[in-house]
Amino acid sequence: MSLIAETPEPPYYAVIFSSLQSADTAGYAEMAERMMKLAAGQPGFLGVESAREEVGITVSYWRDLKSIHRWKAHAEHREAQRIGREKWYSSYKTRVALVERDYGK
Amino acid sequence: MSLIAETPEPPYYAVIFSSLQSADTAGYAEMAERMMKLAAGQPGFLGVESAREEVGITVSYWRDLKSIHRWKAHAEHREAQRIGREKWYSSYKTRVALVERDYGK
Repeated sequence: MSLIAETPEPPYYAVIFSSLQSADTAGYAEMAERMMKLAAGQPGFLGVESAREEVGITVSYWRDLKSIHRWKAHAEHREAQRIGREKWYSSYKTRVALVERDYGK
Repeated sequence: MSLIAETPEPPYYAVIFSSLQSADTAGYAEMAERMMKLAAGQPGFLGVESAREEVGITVSYWRDLKSIHRWKAHAEHREAQRIGREKWYSSYKTRVALVERDYGK
C-alpha cells in the first residue's frame, strides 16, 4: 500500500531510490515490506511513496539529514542494503535531496 | 521506456511528481508520452524516471530552478497540467528538491 505521503511544510528531505531488479528476486518482496515497516518507525520519518514498472522508484521523506544517516546505519537496514547490492539490484541510484517547495491537490 | 537517469554530479534539482489517477484517464497515455518527449528537449533537462502502481511517481531532473520554472510555464505543458488537475488526477503532489548527494552502482 503506497499512496501520496502527507508531508509537513518544507523544508524537509527526500531520499529518491531508483533501482532495476536483477533476475534473482527471491526474498525481495518480504524484505521490502519489512523495511517499509521498519523505516516507518524511525525517528524523523515523514512518509514514503513507491512504485515499480521497468524501474522501481521509492521516495522516502525525512525531517533532516540526521534521521537519514541514522536509518542508513540501522543494522537490519544495512543487511538489507548489502543483499540488495549483491543480489536483487542490477543497478540502483540513491539521491538525497532537500525539498524546498511543494504543492498539489 | 524509463530507466535510471544518468545525472551529473550534484548539486542539481529533482521534481518529484506523485499522483493518483481518477477514473477518467482518456487521453492520458498519449499526453504523458508527448510531455516526456517535450520535457527531454527543454534547456536544463537532465533526465526522468517514472513508474506507476497504486501511486504514480515521475521524477524529472533539472540543472537549476530557472529550467524548472521555464518548463512549468511552457504553453503546451500548462495545458497538460490543466487537464491533469481537472480530469486525470484525483490527487497529486509536486515537490521541488535540491539533490545534494547521490551514489549507486
